[in-house]
Amino acid sequence: MLKGNAIVGQSGGPTSVINASLAGVIKGALDSNGQIETIYGARHGIEGVLNENFINLSERFAEKSNLDLLISTPAAYLGSCRYKLPKDSNDTFVKIFEIFKKHNITYFFYIGGNDSMDTVSKLSAYAKANNHDVNIIGVPKTIDNDLAITDHTPGFGSAAKYIASSLREIARDVQVYDINTVSIVEIMGRNAGWLTAAAALARTQDEPGPHLIYLPELAFDIDKFVLDIEKASKKYKNVIAVVSEGIKTPDGKYVCEGAVSEIVDSFGHKQLSGTAKVLADIIHDKFGWKVRSIEFSLLQRCAAHITSQTDLTEAEQIGTAGVRAALNGETGKMMYFKRTSTSPYKIEILSHDASAIANVEKVVPREWINSEGNDILPPAIDYMLPLIQGESTITFKDGLPVYLKV
Amino acid sequence: MLKGNAIVGQSGGPTSVINASLAGVIKGALDSNGQIETIYGARHGIEGVLNENFINLSERFAEKSNLDLLISTPAAYLGSCRYKLPKDSNDTFVKIFEIFKKHNITYFFYIGGNDSMDTVSKLSAYAKANNHDVNIIGVPKTIDNDLAITDHTPGFGSAAKYIASSLREIARDVQVYDINTVSIVEIMGRNAGWLTAAAALARTQDEPGPHLIYLPELAFDIDKFVLDIEKASKKYKNVIAVVSEGIKTPDGKYVCEGAVSEIVDSFGHKQLSGTAKVLADIIHDKFGWKVRSIEFSLLQRCAAHITSQTDLTEAEQIGTAGVRAALNGETGKMMYFKRTSTSPYKIEILSHDASAIANVEKVVPREWINSEGNDILPPAIDYMLPLIQGESTITFKDGLPVYLKV
Repeated sequence: MLKGNAIVGQSGGPTSVINASLAGVIKGALDSNGQIETIYGARHGIEGVLNENFINLSERFAEKSNLDLLISTPAAYLGSCRYKLPKDSNDTFVKIFEIFKKHNITYFFYIGGNDSMDTVSKLSAYAKANNHDVNIIGVPKTIDNDLAITDHTPGFGSAAKYIASSLREIARDVQVYDINTVSIVEIMGRNAGWLTAAAALARTQDEPGPHLIYLPELAFDIDKFVLDIEKASKKYKNVIAVVSEGIKTPDGKYVCEGAVSEIVDSFGHKQLSGTAKVLADIIHDKFGWKVRSIEFSLLQRCAAHITSQTDLTEAEQIGTAGVRAALNGETGKMMYFKRTSTSPYKIEILSHDASAIANVEKVVPREWINSEGNDILPPAIDYMLPLIQGESTITFKDGLPVYLKV
Repeated sequence: MLKGNAIVGQSGGPTSVINASLAGVIKGALDSNGQIETIYGARHGIEGVLNENFINLSERFAEKSNLDLLISTPAAYLGSCRYKLPKDSNDTFVKIFEIFKKHNITYFFYIGGNDSMDTVSKLSAYAKANNHDVNIIGVPKTIDNDLAITDHTPGFGSAAKYIASSLREIARDVQVYDINTVSIVEIMGRNAGWLTAAAALARTQDEPGPHLIYLPELAFDIDKFVLDIEKASKKYKNVIAVVSEGIKTPDGKYVCEGAVSEIVDSFGHKQLSGTAKVLADIIHDKFGWKVRSIEFSLLQRCAAHITSQTDLTEAEQIGTAGVRAALNGETGKMMYFKRTSTSPYKIEILSHDASAIANVEKVVPREWINSEGNDILPPAIDYMLPLIQGESTITFKDGLPVYLKV
C-alpha cells in the first residue's frame, strides 16, 4: 500500500466545475485514512510541479466550509497551463520525478483534457519503466466534451446549460420589435461541435429557435448558409442561427480567416473578425435586414452563476473516484463516465488507460446531424438533456457571487 | 371617478424586469374594484394602439399563477417599438383617441424610457386640451438608467448585477494562465455611462478588477488609453478594462467608427468592428500581449436568470403605483423613485410631470468619475450597490428557465 504525499494540478481551459473536481480530489485525499499524508496543489499545472510552486491544500481545506466555496468558484483555482510534454521528455521526466521524490510524492492527480491525459499517460509509463512508486491518475475536464471513452466530460453540462439558457433569453429579446432580424451566435469549439449542438436544447420548451445550427464537423458552404437564412426568414420573423467558431469552408479555411485582409483601418491596425461577425456582414449586405452577431466568449466556460447541478455533482464525484483508484493501486488511467441508462439517467464512474484518450478528439457523430447539415437530430438532444439538469445554489454577498480566493 | 377600460403598452429596448412592471400594472387593474373593467395589452407599444392590435390581459391573467411566470420572463411580453410621435402629430392623436373612444379606454399606461415619456406627455396634453377623459401615466424602464427625476430606473439594477457578476467570472477566467493578458469588455450605453460604471461593482469583494473604466461622459483619448493599459499591466498580470460602446474621441467620433474602412474582406464585405475590438487590436499591435475583446451584447439586458430581486420587486411596485395614480385622477405623469435613505436603502414611489423627463438624458456626474477619467469613485458604488441586492428565484423545467408564451 503506497503511502506518501499527493499533488493535484489543473490544466487547459477553465470551466465552471473544474474546481468541483479539485474539491473531490481534496476530499478523497483528506478521507484516505492517512494513506495520503498531505495533498499539495501545483500552481499552473505541470509547470507548478517543475517550479515547485505548491500550495498545502490539506492545511487550506482543513476547514471544510472552504471546500463548499471552492466547489462554486469558477475557473481553475490553482491556475492552469497549456504545457504539453516535449516529444523527447527524458530530462523533464527526470526532473519531475526528482521533485516528486524530494517531496515524498506518491500520488499525482491531473485534472484536464486531451493534453493532460497525454501527460498522465507518459508520466505513468516513465514511472513504471523506472520503478518510481507514484500512482498517476487523470480526471477529465473540458467544456468541449471531446474526450474519447467517457460518455461526457465534466464542464460540458454547465456550458451547455449556459448556452441554452442564454439562447432562450436572446430568443425573447430579438422578438420584441415587429421587424425582420437575423441573429448569428458564435459558440466555442474549434473541431468538435458539442457545445454548438447544445444550442438546440433551447428549443425544448416550444421555443422554435435557434432555427439553424452549424457544427465544425461538416464543411461550411457560405452560399448554402445564405439560402438557409433566406428560407428560414420566410417562416420566422426573427431568425437565430448558431455557428461553431471552428466552421471551415470546403477548402479547409476557417470562415473567420476570410475576414483577414492586409488592409488597415483608420487607426492603422489590421482587422480580424469573429466567425459570426463575418457571416452577419454577409447576410446584412445581401438582404439589408437588421443582423446581429453575438459571441458568448469566455462566459460560456466560466458562468458559475448558472451551473448544472448534475455536472457539478459529477465533477466532484469523479475527482474523489480518481483518488480512490490511485489509493487502490491504479496508475496511468483516466476516470470516465459510463452511461448505463438515459431514462432514467444513470452513470458509473470507471477508469481507462489514459493512453487511449490522449490526443484523440471525439466529435459529434454524423448521424446526429441532419442531412442538410444545418441542424441537430433528436438523439443528440436525448443525450445532452440529462447533463444540464438541476440548478446549483451559490452564495451571494452584497448582491454578487462569493468566490474562494487563492 | 373615471371608469372604463385600460390599455398598457411596452416600448423601447427590452429589460429583464419590464414584464414585472407589466405584471404590476395588470395587478393594479385587476384590484381596481371595477374602476378598470378590462385591461388590454397593446402589441408593440403605441403601434399596437394605432393598429388596434390588443390582447385581453384581464382574461389572460385571471389565473394569477401566470402573473408569477410573467414576472420572471425577460424582454417585452407585449412586444415593443421605437416609435416616436411625429412633431405635428395631430392626425395621429385624433386617430389614437378615436380608438380609445371606440374601446372605451379611460386609462393608458406606457412602460418605457425617454421617448415613451414624450408620448405620455404629448398624449395627455392633447387629451386635456380636447376634453378626452383618458388618464395617461408613464412607468419608467431602461437598463441605461438615464431618466431624469427618478433616482434610478427599473431594469438598471438587474443589468448592473449581470455585468458585475459576469465580470467577476471573467476576472477568474483570465487569471488562470501565468501570462500577461489584457481583456477589454464593451458595455451598452451610447451616451450615459451608468451601466459601464456598474462594472466597478465587481471589485467589491477584494477582486481588483476591472482596473480601468471608461465612460462616454468624457472624451476618450486613445494614446492615454494605451498608456493607462501599459501602467496597469505593470501592476496587474491580467488587466481588465471596461469601455462604454459610446466612447468618442475628442473630435466627436465614436471609437468604433475608426474601424470602418472602405476596404472589403476576401468575401467582398465591408468590415465594421465594435469598440472593444478596435481597442483590443490597438493594444495587441502595440504590446504583443494576448488581448481579448468581449461584448456582453444583448445578454446584459435580457439575462433573467440573474436578476436583482430589488429591481424586480421595485419594477412591479412602480407598475402598480402607476395604476393607483391614474385611478386617483393623475395624468401626464411618470412614476419615479425617490431615495430617502441609502443606508439602510429606502425609496418612495411618487409621480412627476412626464414633460420634464421626456427627451432628457441623465448622465453620470463628473464628480463620480476620477480626475484621470479612467475609473469610478466610491459615491457611485454607494449609489449602485443597493440596486443589485437580492437574487430572484426562477422556475426551471428540464434544466432551463420557463417563460410565459404570448
